[in-house]
This record gives sequence, C-alpha cells and structure tokens, in this order.
Amino acid sequence: MFYKLENGLSVYLFLKKNLPLVSITMVYGVGSFDESKQEQGVAHFLEHMMFKGSKNYSLGAIDLFSHVSGGENNAYTCKDYTAYYHLLPKDSWQEALLIEKDRMINLDLKQGEFDSEKQVVIEELKMYQDEPQEILYDSMYESLYSKSGGYFHPVLGYEKTLDDMSLEIMQGFYDKYYNPSNATLILIGDFDISSAKETIKKELSKFPSKKIARSTNIRTYDLSDRKLIKEMEVEYPNLQIGFPSCGFSTKNYALSNVLDEYLSGGKICRFYQILCEENDLVNNVQSFCDSQVEGGAFFFNFELKDIKDSSKVLTLIYQELNKMLEGAFNKEEFEIAKTKALSNFYMEQEKLDDYTMSLIPFTFYSKNGEALSEYQSLEGLFKDITESDMKSFVCEYFKPSMQVLGIVKDAEDEIPNIFLWEDMK
Amino acid sequence: MFYKLENGLSVYLFLKKNLPLVSITMVYGVGSFDESKQEQGVAHFLEHMMFKGSKNYSLGAIDLFSHVSGGENNAYTCKDYTAYYHLLPKDSWQEALLIEKDRMINLDLKQGEFDSEKQVVIEELKMYQDEPQEILYDSMYESLYSKSGGYFHPVLGYEKTLDDMSLEIMQGFYDKYYNPSNATLILIGDFDISSAKETIKKELSKFPSKKIARSTNIRTYDLSDRKLIKEMEVEYPNLQIGFPSCGFSTKNYALSNVLDEYLSGGKICRFYQILCEENDLVNNVQSFCDSQVEGGAFFFNFELKDIKDSSKVLTLIYQELNKMLEGAFNKEEFEIAKTKALSNFYMEQEKLDDYTMSLIPFTFYSKNGEALSEYQSLEGLFKDITESDMKSFVCEYFKPSMQVLGIVKDAEDEIPNIFLWEDMK
Repeated sequence: MFYKLENGLSVYLFLKKNLPLVSITMVYGVGSFDESKQEQGVAHFLEHMMFKGSKNYSLGAIDLFSHVSGGENNAYTCKDYTAYYHLLPKDSWQEALLIEKDRMINLDLKQGEFDSEKQVVIEELKMYQDEPQEILYDSMYESLYSKSGGYFHPVLGYEKTLDDMSLEIMQGFYDKYYNPSNATLILIGDFDISSAKETIKKELSKFPSKKIARSTNIRTYDLSDRKLIKEMEVEYPNLQIGFPSCGFSTKNYALSNVLDEYLSGGKICRFYQILCEENDLVNNVQSFCDSQVEGGAFFFNFELKDIKDSSKVLTLIYQELNKMLEGAFNKEEFEIAKTKALSNFYMEQEKLDDYTMSLIPFTFYSKNGEALSEYQSLEGLFKDITESDMKSFVCEYFKPSMQVLGIVKDAEDEIPNIFLWEDMK
Repeated sequence: MFYKLENGLSVYLFLKKNLPLVSITMVYGVGSFDESKQEQGVAHFLEHMMFKGSKNYSLGAIDLFSHVSGGENNAYTCKDYTAYYHLLPKDSWQEALLIEKDRMINLDLKQGEFDSEKQVVIEELKMYQDEPQEILYDSMYESLYSKSGGYFHPVLGYEKTLDDMSLEIMQGFYDKYYNPSNATLILIGDFDISSAKETIKKELSKFPSKKIARSTNIRTYDLSDRKLIKEMEVEYPNLQIGFPSCGFSTKNYALSNVLDEYLSGGKICRFYQILCEENDLVNNVQSFCDSQVEGGAFFFNFELKDIKDSSKVLTLIYQELNKMLEGAFNKEEFEIAKTKALSNFYMEQEKLDDYTMSLIPFTFYSKNGEALSEYQSLEGLFKDITESDMKSFVCEYFKPSMQVLGIVKDAEDEIPNIFLWEDMK
C-alpha cells in the first residue's frame, strides 16, 4: 500500500511474510543530478556523513544497532537519489525508523568529522578512477550531457570540488533536500500493517514539511566531442560505446533489460558470438541501460584482446547495430533474452534487499504510488515483448548521430584507428 | 517430504511457493574423504569432468540449457560430498533432472578432455595456494589428522597426485560412487509434489543400485607437529589456531555458529575488541567451525599488523580461551551472538540456492530423512542456548593438548616467537 503523511513523506508498505525479516529504506529524491557546480560530489559525501552522528545517535551507533539486532545496514548515492537501508529481524525495524527520523531532522555535521571524511571520500574517488570501465563510464556522461545539466558530472564529484567543499555547502544541501516532502519510506517484509502505520504516524508526522523546488536541471546534450581516448595502465584496452537513453519508464525498463540480455547476457548472445566466438577479437562484452529519472545512457563495453583490432571490432559492432535498426533480430536468441530477463526479475525478488533496490526507481516513476503494480507488470511485459517493440526502441535510442565512443589504452599502445558509426565505410 | 526409491536414491521435496523458481540439486555422498592415496584430488577433478559430456548431453550442453532456460547451475566438492546444483524458472526443472540422470549413469570420460581439464584443475590448485589463509587451512588438517584418515589431505589434492592421475582411476571412482544408492536429490521451490514424484520415479527408478561400502576412513589424530611456520609473499602475517572439532550434529552446529559470532562476528566481538580495538595488534579476526560428517576443525584466523607482536597476540588469545573454559562469557555479547546466529539463519533462507546449501549437511546427518525438521529446529536452538551449554561445548572441543598453531610469514620477516596454549607462562 501507498500513502502520504501530511508533511509530504511518501510511505510504501509491502508485506512479504515468508521469513521473519523486514527491510526498511529511506530514499531521498536527491543525488548528484541536483548539485550545483560547487556542490559536485556533496550528495555522496553527505551520505557518508549521515553515519557520523545525529542528536540521538552518536558516531558508530547505527552500525552498533545493526550488529546488536542481528541486522545489516547500508546506503548508496546515485545520480537521482540517495537511499539508506536496513535489513532486520522483524522485531527491530521500529528502531531503524527512529534512526532514520533522527538523521533526517537532527544530523550533527561536525567540522572534524567533515575534514577527516573528506579524505575518505577522495580516496574512494581515486580507487574508482583506477578502473578503466569506470573512467569511461564517467567520461561518457561528460561527453553526452552538457555541462549545464545535472547528469554531466560523476556522482563522486571531482577531487578539486571535493577539496574546496565546505561544511556550510553541505549543511545547505542537507537543509534543502533532507526533509519529509522529499523522502520516501519503504517497508517490505513481515510486519503488521496497522501497527506500522501507527508507529510511522507517531514518529514521522510531527515535523513540518519544507517545499522543495527540485532543480529543473533536465537533460541537454552536448555532443561536440564524440571520440575519447584515455590513457592508463591496463592489461587489455577497453572500448565503450554510449548513447543517451530514455528516462525511466516501466516499458523502457523491460525493453532495455531484454535488449541487454540479447546483446551480452552470456556466451550465446549476439555480441559475444560475433566478437569472441567467431572472430576472437574480444575477451568479454557487457551492456547496460543506465536509466535515470530524466534520461540516462545505454552503454556497451568491450575488453579488446589487442588495440590493433579496434577498427575490425567497430566494424562488426556497427554491422550488428545496423541489423537491429532494421529489426533483424535472431529469433531464437530473442526468445532466450526474454526468458532470461523474466527469470532475473524473479531472482531479484528472492532477497529483501535486492527486491527493495529494484523497486526504488519505480517509486520515482509512478505518479500515484503505483510502484509495486508497475514493478509487477514487468512479468507480463517481459513475456509479451515483440521484435517490433524492440525495433522501435532501438530506432528511438540508437541514433548514429548520438553515439559517443571511448577507448582506454596503455600509454605504450599505438593510437587506435577508431571511427564513429556513421563514418563506417 | 522425504522418501527413497527402491534403488536407494534419497529424495527430498520441499515446497516454497513464494516465487516461480525451483532449485534442484543432486548430492553424492563422496568427497576427498573417500579418496585413496593415488586418488587424492579425484573427487574435485571428477566434478569438473561432469560438465564435459555424457551420452545425451555433449560438452557445453549443460551451460547452454541453463542459459536458454534463464537459470543457473553450479557444482562444488568438499571433504564429504559433491553437489550439482540448478536454479531455474519453475517449468524447467524436469530437464535438469534428465541432465543429472544422464551424468549419473552415462558420463562419457574422454582422454582428451581429461588431459586438458587436468591442467585447469592444477591451475586452480595453484591459485588457491597463493592465499595464505588457504595454505594454513590445508596445513591445519594435515597437522591435526593422521595420514591414514580421509580428512588429512586437501580437497583439491596435490600437484603430484593430480599429475599422476589416470583416466582409469577416475573411471573407477565414478563407477564406485556415482549411483543412486549414494545420491540424494533435493528439490525446493514452486512445483507440484505429485507430478514431481511421478517424474522422478519415471526417470530415476529404472537403473539398478550398486551397494557401496563407503570407506571407514574415520578420524584419527596425529598431533606430532603442532607448530607450523610457512613462508610466502604476504602483506601481513597470518596466524591460525585450530582444534579438531565435533562431527556434524544439529546442536553442535547451533553452538558452533553462536560461538563463531561471539568470538569474531563483528567489531564488538570478543577477539576483535581485545586484539584490534584495545591493543591494536591485529587487522582482522575470523573464526569458523568446519564441521564434517565425521569430524572437522574449529579455526581462528588473525591477520597480524606485525610479526613482532606474535607472542603478545597469542597471550591475549590464550587468556580469552582460558576464560571460556571457565564459562566466563560476556553476557551481553553472548546474547548478541545468539541474535546474530538466528538472523543469519533467517537470511540464509532468502535465496533458494543458499537455502539448499545450508540444508545439505542435514541430509547426511539425519537418519530418517528428517533433514528439514532438523534444520528448522535450529530456530529454537539458537534462542535457547545457555552459557552453560557453551561452556560444555568449549570444554569438549578446545583442549589445549589438541591445539595446532600455524603462521604464514614473509621470507624477510624474523622468525616469530610462537608457543602453544599449554606453554603460556
């Protein structure tokens, strides 16, 4: 069930009573998307600070609570939202609610903790920048989206902006976005609905709402630089292709999952067959649709055996993309992709934490609290998708003129012969 | 429900209908325990060969089936048993049954595949031997158990015995142990009991049983060398303490899980508090009870900050062990350990594959097919364990005279001052 408290807090309560466990998650509708230039990285940095103490829960108290209750807790920040999560034996979720209440309204941002955590966050950024795929992922967004829009910059921010960030900037960000009208509480598992409603009302309805004008930082493209060459120490060169993609919708989510399975869901998939099995040019293939609330990107990632093969690999990829634009799908593989997308959908519901994470995007998308029914409608969508649906989807999002191409190579590697889709001879 | 076919195959059928998924597992009551000297490593090597083709499923066919069905499959070998596992959408489990039938009776061991897979298995052994904890784990068993018993040698075998192994040895091992009277089929998930019974009878009851005299290779100790020093490239030295432990029983399983949580289940646990927080000598602490059907070992593992601290660390550990022999448990931490063991028990039931793996040891232990009720009785056991139960358990298994001590150090490190529990001043 879904309802809103008078102060604007959205509440979802879903029963799943097969085990005496409850997952409780507070999601804030704020992520790196909402950051101004000087705030870049603050959403993620603030997520770290949410564990450093609030009025009634001092440093370490949240992890101690999880440990003592036999539970787990975690948090993560993405471009559109920030989620704080607990998995607990059924009798302990009320305490987690008090924790989330306290750090929503009583966070205690201290200069000393801020300074030391800044180093941790910068360290995390540096580790992330050791991964060629992550480098390309961030570069793709920087290349696809214009600087004035919220999707341009990386969730973790930049070392420079983090260095320059002040406690005041963070406090302002927290005050603006961390309040009930910008938050969604999700409870899934084995609990009593009516007493949960009562507890939530008692604890969370008393503090007032603030109206938030969320940034209208929508997608704008700036494709002036579409070929990126990065250098770092890598065993194998990494090639990535990106297209700006749809904003999140249930149908697009279903289509992009099936497409993802079709192209790179395993060894009998299209790109694996062509690039690894038939031509032995590539070690592995990944694809994923990184749908955000307002837009996103569809990525393909290839680990090349040899940089010298770049143009052969690109030719084979573009040929396959051309076939898809014409709607020429391999029928058998297409049916397998649908089956796999459907079984992934079932398997992600096995664990309460996976299930919650899968539901969150639907809570942003669904206008009338229909997140669960939107999510459940995926079962039918996965079964019913046709090749013609897929052709329309591909034609809408795989536009040669919107392609960005990136490669990460070793400093010693030759400069590869890379070219864009529309430039294929 | 539990029943046996006339040919001796044990069958467990457990319904769990919350998602349209089925897990199907064939477990053979054979592992490294049953290997003669020249067979060392064959159980695990044979597990690899079970994917290389049988009469009706050629090389690659099993993975292809999983992919096409949207499922997963895997296998693993331990000291006592070997398990072959599929997780599938509900309508596909019958095909997995045909696969397991075919490779139980029609495995096609080919010399060429045997030779090339031997290199893969030896490579796996070498990778495993790069891990200091794994080196110590194997050495502990070699030091605790006598050479004549089945628990002495590592599951993966030795490079020498693998090198010398022939296809004939493997064929003999397969013929002896892979048959219905030595196998247990476990089906968990959303299926129809009566049609499952019919299908299983139709497919699996027709081939005859062979009687197996399983080796009476029981536990015998040989503690002539109780201090082990190993050298390999390590960032931090690794210290391990082992005691031979109980054979598997439900109550001992409950007790060892609680003890494990008490000693090293997280940052507020005994060993972490003493060695990491209060004295800053150790980076991290692990413990686990490695219960086999007939015996096993309880292990503690410590990553030391500095080899120079070895004797300080040992003194602190032995002091804590002494307190436990006297039944002096920290009451609050003991209650937390019980809560954590109980919630781990619930969480391991979330996914069908975790749940199946947890149940398997109970299928060996329970004499009348009571595996599920034995497993479910853990809920009460975790709640009811007293400090006095724990004292008895500790006194039975933590005998100073049965301790083995191992350390892995860098070649450049000084030789550490290590001493046994009974030699503490």
